[in-house]
Amino acid sequence: MRVALLAHEKFPDDAKTAVGVLRYADYDVTAVLDRDLAGDRVNDHLEGVPDAPIVAGMDDLDEPVDALLIGIAPIGGGFDDSWRPDVRAAIESGADVIAGLHYFLSEDDEFASLAAENGVDLWDVRKPDADLTVAQGVSGDVAADVVLTVGTDCSTGKMTASVEMTDAATDRGEDAAFVPTGQTGIMIANWGHPIDRVISDFTAGAVEDMIVEKGDEHDYLFVEGQGAITHPAYSAVTLGILHGSMPDKLVLTHNAGQEVVHGYEDFELADLETYVDLYEDLAAPVHEAEVVAGMLNTSAIESDEAAREAVETYSDAIGAPATDPVRFGAEEILDAVL
Amino acid sequence: MRVALLAHEKFPDDAKTAVGVLRYADYDVTAVLDRDLAGDRVNDHLEGVPDAPIVAGMDDLDEPVDALLIGIAPIGGGFDDSWRPDVRAAIESGADVIAGLHYFLSEDDEFASLAAENGVDLWDVRKPDADLTVAQGVSGDVAADVVLTVGTDCSTGKMTASVEMTDAATDRGEDAAFVPTGQTGIMIANWGHPIDRVISDFTAGAVEDMIVEKGDEHDYLFVEGQGAITHPAYSAVTLGILHGSMPDKLVLTHNAGQEVVHGYEDFELADLETYVDLYEDLAAPVHEAEVVAGMLNTSAIESDEAAREAVETYSDAIGAPATDPVRFGAEEILDAVL
Repeated sequence: MRVALLAHEKFPDDAKTAVGVLRYADYDVTAVLDRDLAGDRVNDHLEGVPDAPIVAGMDDLDEPVDALLIGIAPIGGGFDDSWRPDVRAAIESGADVIAGLHYFLSEDDEFASLAAENGVDLWDVRKPDADLTVAQGVSGDVAADVVLTVGTDCSTGKMTASVEMTDAATDRGEDAAFVPTGQTGIMIANWGHPIDRVISDFTAGAVEDMIVEKGDEHDYLFVEGQGAITHPAYSAVTLGILHGSMPDKLVLTHNAGQEVVHGYEDFELADLETYVDLYEDLAAPVHEAEVVAGMLNTSAIESDEAAREAVETYSDAIGAPATDPVRFGAEEILDAVL
Repeated sequence: MRVALLAHEKFPDDAKTAVGVLRYADYDVTAVLDRDLAGDRVNDHLEGVPDAPIVAGMDDLDEPVDALLIGIAPIGGGFDDSWRPDVRAAIESGADVIAGLHYFLSEDDEFASLAAENGVDLWDVRKPDADLTVAQGVSGDVAADVVLTVGTDCSTGKMTASVEMTDAATDRGEDAAFVPTGQTGIMIANWGHPIDRVISDFTAGAVEDMIVEKGDEHDYLFVEGQGAITHPAYSAVTLGILHGSMPDKLVLTHNAGQEVVHGYEDFELADLETYVDLYEDLAAPVHEAEVVAGMLNTSAIESDEAAREAVETYSDAIGAPATDPVRFGAEEILDAVL
């Protein structure tokens, strides 16, 4: 599928979804839309991903695309009206539109009627299925080994770690699948429930629905965790995923050097050992699981040598092998996980 | 406010909401609607609550009421069409209708237009406010002491314990308020957010919104907890309330003799000490709180003497004073809580 990524004024540092899609999705990204960087190329700003031109808008594409994907999410998840001409142009050209906003394109009158006229789909990734319900407590019964990424905060690389482990296991010849729980993960995997948007009573149930759907088709499921068990705002989602997925193994993710909760700086992170204990102690009454490996995001550390030292210190603190999956690869800890 | 309670075929044992309202709400309940018990009186079936006639339907009321309250919730929270004539009659008589169903009366075409015609309100207690959002992490800043009930399972008496403590503290002359989080609690308190129905990302935020609203108006807030931290389906809501309310003190509720999770019988309850540790360890990184008292539901134990023994055993296990608030009163443990 040929896709254009909308990332106006935000590429690449504030376009987490666009970067995730470039790095991990199977889409053929033929252009990035960013009016501030028009004329540049993706690799001028981001390495290690397929290159593509950056253009000012849909009218500047060389060839038509199958879909326009909104690759940025402003605080609050709203729709920025300056994107309207691009979305309109995409629909009129016969392209589907994929978005992970809290604002649903399929409920926008103009887009909905235009999409019907042109026979295209508006896929609001964050709109939960209407038939989700409470968990039955059966995720532990699936055949696959379930590996869940957990963390010390939001944005510690849980999705990245889960995708990297899936890819590393697949490279080894294992039958492994990635189970997404957030908007970017869903866009990458092309399926999944947006766990942070479901009714709170259905949090575990929505995760269970995915585990049950895939759990007998693969030998390993790598489930994307969310938030942190000590997060003042998001811990509910974290625990719903832990109990809803009933993992056999946990992988603890952390940003090197981080000491307080991002955006909630009055709250200090707990000791790393405390996270290990909390996740294991909470898993135990429902389905026992151990932290078998760690993933450290060392992107803020310049030299590979210093990053390697940070990973070793982290490994000692959590009592399990660790790596930075982006810098050193997930393969390094795979023996501990499989 | 004069209220009729609809509890067809379920009163009193399967009409938890009706019984909670009879026991704790300030409404003047003038009749219970139960077509199976028509002609009996409330006190024929339930002691310790104000008496009222039981009638077959709205047409059999002696005098008009200000509101009809749906006091039962079938599995799944649906609306039973056999109730439709009573709801219609209530609206046509000028009475508001209060319901805590997943099915929203205000979105039922017949009821909505009839209510508009007759100028009455349809209050769907379980319909969350549209403006809820993520927690800011400020519940710990309020002036009031916040006391949260937690439990070993759903239906361990968290709402009852919270209301009984509020009433006991008020009787002592303290300025205390009850903070509801579920449908029956909201009907009793006449305000509040239905925490189990909000978007999962907003679980803590919806609780925080209530704590901030009331936290500087009272000396004590008694917050109704939900579920259990080890519940395979509902733990997300439990933890969202723990971190969203940032309690100073915890009160652990439990059903005497219960050993497995109700409705999830493959899952054993953990040791009582484990619950104390889990709740305290999870609270600590966000806002430290200790389990200062316990509440044991001894309704399944016949003699007061045996119930008293069970309470003492429970108190020893959790390392804090305990009572059965319905049988022996909440006053017994109030010194440990205030």
